[in-house]
Amino acid sequence: MTDTALQNTVRTAAESASPSAALSAVSSAASSFTAEDHVLAATLFDRVRDLSFDGVGVSRESYGASETATLDYLTEWAIQQGLEVVTDAAANRLFTLPGSGDAAHVVVGSHVDSVPQGGNFDGLAGVISGLLCLKRLKDEGRQPAHPLMVAGMRGEESAWFGKAYMGSSAILGKLTADDLALVNKRNGKSMGEAMAAAGVDIDVVAAGTPMPWVSKVHAYLELHIEQGPIMVARKWPTAIVSGIRGNLRHNSVACIGEPGHSGAVPRWLRKDAVFAVADLLMRLDEHWRVLLERGNDLVVTSGIMGTDPAEHAVSRIPGQVNFSFEVRSESTDTLEAFYKVMRDECDAVARQRGVRFEFDRRIASAPAVMDTGIVKTLLDTADALSLPVEKVASGAGHDAALFANAGIPSGMIFIRNEHGSHNPQEAMDMDDFMAGTNLLYHALLRM
Amino acid sequence: MTDTALQNTVRTAAESASPSAALSAVSSAASSFTAEDHVLAATLFDRVRDLSFDGVGVSRESYGASETATLDYLTEWAIQQGLEVVTDAAANRLFTLPGSGDAAHVVVGSHVDSVPQGGNFDGLAGVISGLLCLKRLKDEGRQPAHPLMVAGMRGEESAWFGKAYMGSSAILGKLTADDLALVNKRNGKSMGEAMAAAGVDIDVVAAGTPMPWVSKVHAYLELHIEQGPIMVARKWPTAIVSGIRGNLRHNSVACIGEPGHSGAVPRWLRKDAVFAVADLLMRLDEHWRVLLERGNDLVVTSGIMGTDPAEHAVSRIPGQVNFSFEVRSESTDTLEAFYKVMRDECDAVARQRGVRFEFDRRIASAPAVMDTGIVKTLLDTADALSLPVEKVASGAGHDAALFANAGIPSGMIFIRNEHGSHNPQEAMDMDDFMAGTNLLYHALLRM
Repeated sequence: MTDTALQNTVRTAAESASPSAALSAVSSAASSFTAEDHVLAATLFDRVRDLSFDGVGVSRESYGASETATLDYLTEWAIQQGLEVVTDAAANRLFTLPGSGDAAHVVVGSHVDSVPQGGNFDGLAGVISGLLCLKRLKDEGRQPAHPLMVAGMRGEESAWFGKAYMGSSAILGKLTADDLALVNKRNGKSMGEAMAAAGVDIDVVAAGTPMPWVSKVHAYLELHIEQGPIMVARKWPTAIVSGIRGNLRHNSVACIGEPGHSGAVPRWLRKDAVFAVADLLMRLDEHWRVLLERGNDLVVTSGIMGTDPAEHAVSRIPGQVNFSFEVRSESTDTLEAFYKVMRDECDAVARQRGVRFEFDRRIASAPAVMDTGIVKTLLDTADALSLPVEKVASGAGHDAALFANAGIPSGMIFIRNEHGSHNPQEAMDMDDFMAGTNLLYHALLRM
Repeated sequence: MTDTALQNTVRTAAESASPSAALSAVSSAASSFTAEDHVLAATLFDRVRDLSFDGVGVSRESYGASETATLDYLTEWAIQQGLEVVTDAAANRLFTLPGSGDAAHVVVGSHVDSVPQGGNFDGLAGVISGLLCLKRLKDEGRQPAHPLMVAGMRGEESAWFGKAYMGSSAILGKLTADDLALVNKRNGKSMGEAMAAAGVDIDVVAAGTPMPWVSKVHAYLELHIEQGPIMVARKWPTAIVSGIRGNLRHNSVACIGEPGHSGAVPRWLRKDAVFAVADLLMRLDEHWRVLLERGNDLVVTSGIMGTDPAEHAVSRIPGQVNFSFEVRSESTDTLEAFYKVMRDECDAVARQRGVRFEFDRRIASAPAVMDTGIVKTLLDTADALSLPVEKVASGAGHDAALFANAGIPSGMIFIRNEHGSHNPQEAMDMDDFMAGTNLLYHALLRM
């Protein structure tokens, strides 16, 4: 399909103001971004990488200089394209077409910060995809029924202040005084100090006042790289997120048995904490397997585990093991059901192996369900574009979870990405990114 | 039974020189230590505790001052009783009845050192039981067919120089130059220096020359507290050791999987090292259970286990776990069979869970089998004394293992003991000790 042919199939903003008109444009399955847009996207990513390269990966510190420099660069580019840019009281940048006015917007947002020595695509991809859609709307002279606003947000990564979603929390009026007092261990600055230095109106944020634009959001969309390996394994370039997993955690569970001489205590008299925890994990593994077979969404992890280095020895029956427990699911019911199974199995193992389990505070993070209407729109749009997509759960958290849990209908598009995230080896193929951005663009026209 | 009645049932040394005469004395089941002997035993233990008390438990350092003070005290007491005491080139004390001459002796030995802040009975009980038997032989005017020699040995505990059985190794000519260079970290002295200071003829020991008296040993017997909980659980005051478990070890096995985001990687794509090791342990647990049911002697321990603190996190799939592996058994065949099972299960887990296992050097310690004739004599003697005994495997190592593996017929009597060993809470009941010493005494008369 040539650019000339493309022009023949799209309509003016006035013509495509109704959903049905937009749909007919999509249905041609011919409407893609141009080759020039592909080059532009790569240039934007490369330029931001250059200005935040730390010698190993990229470091765009939450509310730090390189995060601001990234937003400044994107602002400069947007203004050159004839887009409008405003900064809200939380120092986020909001990009719109001129004249989008007071109508309820569809917000396409993501964050521009990264972890230290991170990859270039986690977060940034979502902002650039939104900006490419804005530019294309302008190029094609369109204005969707719900005007597009791109939110270049800050402070999503927990790596800097030990708290995630600071930017979207500030936007939604949900940062607390305790949050603002959190300190970035790398430079000793508090979150409040860093925000103030980045231009945030701390009084507004500290008061818990949502940004005024939140009240006009019709829907929230976010494009993001997948941070797991499913899409690479399944060969899916794009996927639609069904929900963002919540979790239940114990940072530390102690399994307490009885130490003893490894040679002198027979099996029937042992209270071996390592065997007890191994038993517990294999019981949970089996429940997990069965729950997956029944169609539940679930992942279970014990990321930290160990005997006590102060007293363990090769020839000593381990009297104590400490371990972390985490279960994640899109479903609160599944989380609670699995948590109960875990506690029940602890009781059973305790009875059978003569140990006891001691739990620290249970920490809960609620799942976020993506809006079923938006999910359907995204699936239908992909179908119309002949783009093979599947629904996946997001295991990692995203700003979209906060918007969804604030009652704003939300949706997410995942882009295939190799080598996980939070490392310089993140590898997103630009063709996958442009396919996802094209899906986003056509979905915007339908909304 | 009064002392007077006792005198009526025992014979003089001349009369009881034949085994059948000794047997008839036993068969009366009346021949016990006197009430005075009970008091004496308690006094000996208390006096040694007093001279080696460290404020918490007892500390009788291998080739150190309190170990020597213990032997000096026992020597002083023995001379008062009219016993003969000589010191060999390895600075052990050898106690005999006067005139036992060049006949092949039955040696009753154990060690007088302890771990730091240890208990008073581990080792010392064996030496005191032997001395009580010597005194009683003298009191009763007996001289067994094979005269009794009590060996008050040194340096059995590995806590001081990182090597166990130094004393019996020196006796058997098996200490190496590397051993002698081992350093006691508490004071910086080498084993060679400490031995020399304790009166050891280092040239003889370093040359690997066995002590001359070893060539005249008819049999080696050792009475020792049990260091495990079996006898307390089974309510056995005494037990006969069938063998001393050997072991196969890896100090560190690495299970290497693949780290990942705990929320973003589904079960089917995980290479979770913690779940893999848990799986391995539960497979080994089941093999262990089945092997025990088939009558094998076996204990399995993973005393050290853990994720890497430098990279583990609650929300990170653990990419590596390091753990120790130890299997102990009286049977070399069982050890090797279980080791093969372990390696096979590692291969299976590796295939099924996408991990791999890396092993450090395999360390082997051979089991020691107690002499079947001596075991039978001990069992028969106990039967004649109406003393309920059972055969048990010794999980902890003992000097007896070195004598047995040097080809000297050996046997061991265990005494019930609460709270394990190597701690001040060791709790041996004096009635149990005297019952075991009585068993030892009558067994000596049969040998």
